[in-house]
This record gives sequence, structure tokens and C-alpha cells, in this order.
Amino acid sequence: MQIANPHVVSMHAYTPGEQPQGTGWVKLNTNENPYPPSPKVAEALQKEIGADGNKLRLYPNPTSKPLREVLGKFHDVPAEWILTGNGSDDILNLLMRVYAGPDRAIGMTTPSYSLYPVLAALQAAPLIEVPFDKNFRLDAKAIAQCGANIFFLTSPNAPSGVGFSTATIAKIAKNFPGILVIDEAYAIFAKENAADLVKKFPRVAVTRTFSKAYSLAGLRVGYALAQPEIIALLDRARDSYNLDRLAQVAAVAAIEDVPYYDGITAKVIKTRDAFLQKVRALGWFAHPSQANFVLIEPATTQGKTGPAVAEALFHYLKDNQILVRYFGKHPLTNAALRVTIGTDSEMAALSAALDTWLTLAPAV
Amino acid sequence: MQIANPHVVSMHAYTPGEQPQGTGWVKLNTNENPYPPSPKVAEALQKEIGADGNKLRLYPNPTSKPLREVLGKFHDVPAEWILTGNGSDDILNLLMRVYAGPDRAIGMTTPSYSLYPVLAALQAAPLIEVPFDKNFRLDAKAIAQCGANIFFLTSPNAPSGVGFSTATIAKIAKNFPGILVIDEAYAIFAKENAADLVKKFPRVAVTRTFSKAYSLAGLRVGYALAQPEIIALLDRARDSYNLDRLAQVAAVAAIEDVPYYDGITAKVIKTRDAFLQKVRALGWFAHPSQANFVLIEPATTQGKTGPAVAEALFHYLKDNQILVRYFGKHPLTNAALRVTIGTDSEMAALSAALDTWLTLAPAV
Repeated sequence: MQIANPHVVSMHAYTPGEQPQGTGWVKLNTNENPYPPSPKVAEALQKEIGADGNKLRLYPNPTSKPLREVLGKFHDVPAEWILTGNGSDDILNLLMRVYAGPDRAIGMTTPSYSLYPVLAALQAAPLIEVPFDKNFRLDAKAIAQCGANIFFLTSPNAPSGVGFSTATIAKIAKNFPGILVIDEAYAIFAKENAADLVKKFPRVAVTRTFSKAYSLAGLRVGYALAQPEIIALLDRARDSYNLDRLAQVAAVAAIEDVPYYDGITAKVIKTRDAFLQKVRALGWFAHPSQANFVLIEPATTQGKTGPAVAEALFHYLKDNQILVRYFGKHPLTNAALRVTIGTDSEMAALSAALDTWLTLAPAV
Repeated sequence: MQIANPHVVSMHAYTPGEQPQGTGWVKLNTNENPYPPSPKVAEALQKEIGADGNKLRLYPNPTSKPLREVLGKFHDVPAEWILTGNGSDDILNLLMRVYAGPDRAIGMTTPSYSLYPVLAALQAAPLIEVPFDKNFRLDAKAIAQCGANIFFLTSPNAPSGVGFSTATIAKIAKNFPGILVIDEAYAIFAKENAADLVKKFPRVAVTRTFSKAYSLAGLRVGYALAQPEIIALLDRARDSYNLDRLAQVAAVAAIEDVPYYDGITAKVIKTRDAFLQKVRALGWFAHPSQANFVLIEPATTQGKTGPAVAEALFHYLKDNQILVRYFGKHPLTNAALRVTIGTDSEMAALSAALDTWLTLAPAV
């Protein structure tokens, strides 16, 4: 018998997007918010650190109670309906540990968040994929009947940005016999969200993150919203001190500053829609987006599209210190690039680079 | 079939020590350091946060590379021998996921860290306990032959504080056929540590934490030290962004300020030895300690000892806003209290309370 678990030995780790350490990059590759967090976040952090960092010697609140209380208010549910995590990845991992295993398959739409298969493999759980059509439409019936014990639905979808109606998701919630996880990492940028479905459906869990809309990717805060039966099971698998002191106070300060975040969210949406317009004006196909990124299909001036074109543009941009994301493995994404929405000036730099690239003799 | 994994439904969660939220407490119950972290920690945090917290919008370094490099230097090994975690609990959890399971038992000395059985249950792994005798001596032969796939050895032991010689641990490392985890949460307070054993034994992993000796319990930083084969497997199971930006910079600043930490460690040891002397002068039994806490067995003036006496003192102290830890479930600890070493003035307050308690008519 080998010493390590065979399913771990044979699995592949998750590949995060590149995090360049130098300066000068226009970084549009990992869906970070281009605007800083609310000024109240820095203020709250300074206060918690104090002159000498003395509070840091003490363990944090083990249940993140103050944060869970403000999140409960935000969603109009008791704090017992909220579980906080070290990023929403922590929450996804806990959901797997409670509801997935060798006899409990996980389901997902494909393509979506590439962490799900990694977490399923880590739990030795079979993976059931429900494929999207080329327009990333949700096949509610196929999902409901897929046979998974727990299903992960990224809404809006990543990497396409396509949003789904709450009515369609409710239909899935009604008909799917397992646990339905609605991964709403990007929902704050969407026209509607499905958070309230947890009130009606005891087998639905919604996950959220502070990494995108709240400009706190660097601090790792996420949460689950579900009825107390689910939350209590996840809590059992949770590490007692999974959220540190600074992450807790930062998240409280952020969630309370609604006007600030309404402002930057509106700016991102406006910039996104303007960029989509620009790209379509070039004659390129782009999926409609309800997230803080867009999936665009570049075409040469001769109208050529495809993986070679997308990859060539990816490298051209990278050579010019503009970082976007290329998912070359899936036929629905391998002719496209995923572009995070930056500031107006970052998007202007990208637009100028696209224009220049088009004028060059295509390398493909 | 029930929806959740049965081994999760039937498990018990870990019970962390009480974290009182009010003021006025002499908090000697969860082995926190009584001194603030190095002043360079607050400085490094201020710098990372900046005026507006703008860096917090960006993901942290996914592999904690700068931190792993300074830790590598600290232990005189390459960075590939280090894995960082969200507290050492994160590391212990990863070790379980890689090396424990239904066919892979975990082993531990009993009593020791009560998180091990919880993590084993979460992994549906059988638990093999190697009991201590009343002096908490290490039974190297029993451990080597216990049949576990992975063994967790807390060294120095908690909750007794008893330290073990590196020679004895090396004997276990040589003869135990599985993975030997030496949990050195308290090793910086000990006469010797076993970190260098990883250089000789490819199946040994040492875990360390910043929560105790480095006064950073509030920030959740721990790490594993092992040969690259072990580290690479743990890394596969690790969440990509398990350590946030502020935790990373704080830990780097801490590990680099050797003189500061040498100073506060020496103070804690001096206070600990003085407190042990005081307790023994009362005629009480106390285990020798190589950690930042002591396990003491209170006795009434009539010489009465036992669970009722220990529990009565626990409540008396709590009523006087002095919090210590009582582990009532195990016969080797249920007549004793575990006391974290605080500042000299905190220990003076505790000593005065013990004296007063002795003068009262014993309630037991």
C-alpha cells in the first residue's frame, strides 16, 4: 500500500491565474476589482492593528460572529444562516467534504469554475458534467436529472459572464434532488441574483466572495448563505479559526459601506458595457456579460478566428504588459480571451493595443 | 441514502477555548503570547495597507513565496521544503487529507491536541491512540508499532507541557513505517526541537505556528517543514490562496526579527519557571514544562486533590475574571488546570487569587 491516498497522488492541482510580481502591468486576468476597497476598510484595519499590533496576539472570534451578523442583516436572515470562509474557495471545499465522496458525485456545468473538479478529486468524488451549448444557456432539465449528489452552478457563469434568470434557477432548485450550490462570486454585477432562493429551498446554498465586488481578493473572505441545517453541517467541517482578525474587520467595514460599493459597481458595469460595444464594433463576437469580465472572440482583419488567433493575441498583449486569461482546453473557450474589466484608462490601453494588433500583419 | 456524508453527520466538531469578548479578563486559557508581536509587524502591515488599502484588491502571492523563502533560510533548507498554511491547523488538515482515510489510520498520543480526532473523523479515518503514563513519557516502541499510517506527535506535549528529547523522536522516526508528524507548536519555548530530523528522514514532517511564540494567533499563519516529496503532495491539496496578503507580510516581518522574539521568549520562560516554583511551594504537583503553559494539580489546604478540586478552582478563577483551561474528560488531566503563561503582573494576579482561594473554606 502506498502511504499517500491514491486519489491525491493521481490528482492535478488547481492552476491559479498568473499573479505578476513586477510593476507596470495592466492586470486583467483574475477578475479583481480595479478600484480600492471602501476607505472604511483601511480605517478599520488601522484601528484593529493599533500602534503595536497587540490585538494580533489574540485568536480571532472563532465563529466570525460580528461579520455573520452584518451579513445576516444584509441578506435579511439570522446569523445562523451564514457561514464565513477563508475565501469562497474555503466554503466550496467544505461543501465538498460534507456532501461529496466516492458514492456522492458532484455535478457542474462545463465550462465553469475549474476548481470544482480539483476539489471533487480531492474528495475522491465522481464528476458529472452538464455541457453548455455555444451560447451558455442553462439546461435546467439536464441539471435536475444529472444524478449528482451536489451540483455547483456558477451564476453568472465564469468564464463566459452569461447570467441566468432566477426563475430558471428556481426550477432547478425545485427539481434537483440533491444540494444545489449557486456560486454567486459575480452576482453583484448581475441584473438579478438568486440569494433569496435559500429562504424557500432547504437544499440550496448560495456562496459569495469579497474578492470581486468588494475589492478584497487580498484578504480572503467568502461566505455561504443557506438554511441552518446545511450551515451547521458545514460548520462542523470548518476550521475553528478559519478567518483571521483583519479579514473579519475588513469585511464588516466593507459590507456596511453600501453607497461606496454601489458606486464602484456601477462604474465597472458602465466600463464593461462600453468595452463590449467597442469589441463588437470591431466585428468580434462577445458573450453578453453580467459579471466584471467579458469573454471575447478576437478576429483578424481578414475575419479569421479560432484558437491560434486567440492565443496569438494573448501573447501579443502579454508582451505589451497587458495580462488577460486564455482557457485553451475547452472548445467553447479556446477561440476566446477572458478580459477582466479594469479602470477606464486600463481599458483604453487595452483597446489601443487591440487596434494596433489588428494593423499588424497577423502572425497566424 | 442521506445527502450528507454519514461520517460528517456523526462526528463532533472541535471545541476551541473560550474567547471572551469583554474587557478586564486575565486570559490564560488558549496559550496566546502575552507580549505584542515585533514592532516590525505593525510597520509591515501599515505599509501593505497603505493610505487606501489599494493592494488588498489584488490576490496574494499564491504560494507565499517570500514567506517560504525566509522560512527556508530560518531552517536552512530550500523554500521547496516549506508549505505555509492558514494556521498550523490548515497544515494538519492537509496532512490528514493526503495521508489518512478509511484504510489509513491516524495515530496520536493521548492526551494531546484534541483537534486530531476531529480531523480524522472528517476524513473517515480510524484513530489509534497510544496512551501516556502519568508522567507523560514517550513510549517510542508503542508508537513505532501502533499500525497508523500517519502519526501526530505533539512535542512538547499539550496539555502537559512535557518535552521530549530529539534522540527519542529520532528513534520513532527511524522505526515508524508511516508519516511521522512532529507538531512543534510550542517548540520555540523548549530546550531542543526536532526540526532538523526532516533532513535525515523523508517521512517526517514538522509543523510550526506563528500563533504562540510569534504573538500572531489573530493572523493565522502556520507551516510545514518536510522533504519536497511530502510538501508537493500537501501543496496539491492546499487552497491556492490559503494565506492572505496581510498574514504573509506580518509573518515575514516576524520571522526576521530574531532579537525581539528571543527577548520575549526568554521572558515567558523565566515567568513560567517562577510560576512553577510558586505552585510547587504550595505543595501542588506540576508537570515540568517546556512550553508557554503549565499543567498544575491544585490541592486544598487539607491536601485534597482531584477533579472536583480542579473544577472548583477553575470556576473560582473564572468568577474572578481569570480564565484558564480545564480538560475534564481525561484521567490524566481532570484533576489539573492548564495555565498559559502571561505577563509577570498577570501571573501575580493569578498567584494572589490562588492564595485567596486556599484561605477560603474549600467548596469541595
